[in-house]
Amino acid sequence: MRVRGAPLIGVAAAYGVSLALRADPSDASLGAALVTLGATRPTAVNLRWALERMAGVLRPAAPADRAGRAYAEAAAMAEEDVDVCRRLGEHGERLLQGAWEAAGGDRPLNVLTHCNAGWLATVDWGTALAPVYRAHEAGMPVHVWVDETRPRNQGLLTAWELAQHGVPHTVVVDNAGGLLMRRGQVDLCLVGTDRTTRAGEVANKIGTYLKALAARDNRVPFYVAAPSSSIDWTLADGAAIPIEERDRAELGYDPAVPAINPAFDVTPASLVTALVTERGVCEASEAGLRRLFPEE
Amino acid sequence: MRVRGAPLIGVAAAYGVSLALRADPSDASLGAALVTLGATRPTAVNLRWALERMAGVLRPAAPADRAGRAYAEAAAMAEEDVDVCRRLGEHGERLLQGAWEAAGGDRPLNVLTHCNAGWLATVDWGTALAPVYRAHEAGMPVHVWVDETRPRNQGLLTAWELAQHGVPHTVVVDNAGGLLMRRGQVDLCLVGTDRTTRAGEVANKIGTYLKALAARDNRVPFYVAAPSSSIDWTLADGAAIPIEERDRAELGYDPAVPAINPAFDVTPASLVTALVTERGVCEASEAGLRRLFPEE
Repeated sequence: MRVRGAPLIGVAAAYGVSLALRADPSDASLGAALVTLGATRPTAVNLRWALERMAGVLRPAAPADRAGRAYAEAAAMAEEDVDVCRRLGEHGERLLQGAWEAAGGDRPLNVLTHCNAGWLATVDWGTALAPVYRAHEAGMPVHVWVDETRPRNQGLLTAWELAQHGVPHTVVVDNAGGLLMRRGQVDLCLVGTDRTTRAGEVANKIGTYLKALAARDNRVPFYVAAPSSSIDWTLADGAAIPIEERDRAELGYDPAVPAINPAFDVTPASLVTALVTERGVCEASEAGLRRLFPEE
Repeated sequence: MRVRGAPLIGVAAAYGVSLALRADPSDASLGAALVTLGATRPTAVNLRWALERMAGVLRPAAPADRAGRAYAEAAAMAEEDVDVCRRLGEHGERLLQGAWEAAGGDRPLNVLTHCNAGWLATVDWGTALAPVYRAHEAGMPVHVWVDETRPRNQGLLTAWELAQHGVPHTVVVDNAGGLLMRRGQVDLCLVGTDRTTRAGEVANKIGTYLKALAARDNRVPFYVAAPSSSIDWTLADGAAIPIEERDRAELGYDPAVPAINPAFDVTPASLVTALVTERGVCEASEAGLRRLFPEE
């Protein structure tokens, strides 16, 4: 958890491979780095994606060239992540603009987000927050409801990020989103994803599914910012995504209290209004995703 | 918050009236006690119910008799609360027994609850937990998933109560219930209520509505333990229930972080499988409630 946020986890792992090969560029060292880094987090698929990309470049390379090529590839991934988030932000900004105009354009657009999917979770911009930053910079009034996101309170990271940009926001406990939506105080939800199946099911920080249910019940659009590095083309069924079970010490309870601490949940595609990717916005379905990514 | 739990708030307010009249039994003192105590909490209707009952007994009484009659009435309400919870527990126990047998009877019944509706929230037994205690004492294996219930973590009170009785339980963050239900790890939900409209809408601790949505999405029964003192016969529409907005200091954030702290939400009757009252189990509807309480 020194590094968190699915896109940042992927890029950091790529740099990790580069560091391992600087110390020892052998096949054994490469293999060990891929296995060790790959085992650090089970849910975010960006980690596997980044390591497979590194392996594809480095396995055929001569050991003497590997450290240099690994660093170059990791640096390229970092640059690409910035570009992906920037483009995702452009597509998402159009969604926000449309929602704001549809709501009359005479008051701030209220966006609810869960966890942190901003620049603290990526190389820059963020995923779910990139559209918010772009809209704010373009002069659109936007206010963000920030779920506190127990147990690690990543919502406070989101609040801190938003404060740096001067974006109005209000933090609430994770229990509050349903009330806000019933009161008509949320125009749309926008969250990130740690793994999106090719059928559009979304594993994201635990509690995301509950907000998606409330959004549907209140006819609030529920968007997921899904860079292609988060898409797992090998999976359709979200129930097959491994859910990280984290240390109960994170909960802060007396050790005598029985407790468990699962870190993610899966939101079915039927609750997702649309996915926002770096290539545009699509339906949360295999057909929608393949239209944007026909090469996969 | 020295006194919490809707039924206990009602009984404590009745004793409060008794104390005020011991100091000064005049009409003015009675009126001031009713107004002051009535303004302490807006959402739980048990408070209004208890104060109206005290007013009905005490207004016609001679001032010299008031202190004695007030104490006797408060003591009667305390006794009745124990009896109401005990009977509610009997009706609820039959629901749990039926669910357990329907699930095969070969593993513990998994009950999810939110907040604390046990004997810490009533005079004794509790409302939502009364059926659990009775089932456990009758030898039925039951395991309770306890929502931590941010921001005040009343779930830890529930865990403590359950531990005193030896009832197996596991605390989870409020975000986790959806995942548990999707995994099939919850057989039924059972929560309390601070105010139930005559149409069966339920104001309870914030986050209850999100669990009710997840229950419906996963075909998990969602029961509300609703003693008649929690029923507001004057209201049909839950949107008219005042939602207490509590001090943001409860959230524990840096004061610079913008935040709000609403304490309750409203679950529509359509998400409530049934209400459990001291007179039996009924549909969450005006017809269902009037069948059990025809005198209202």
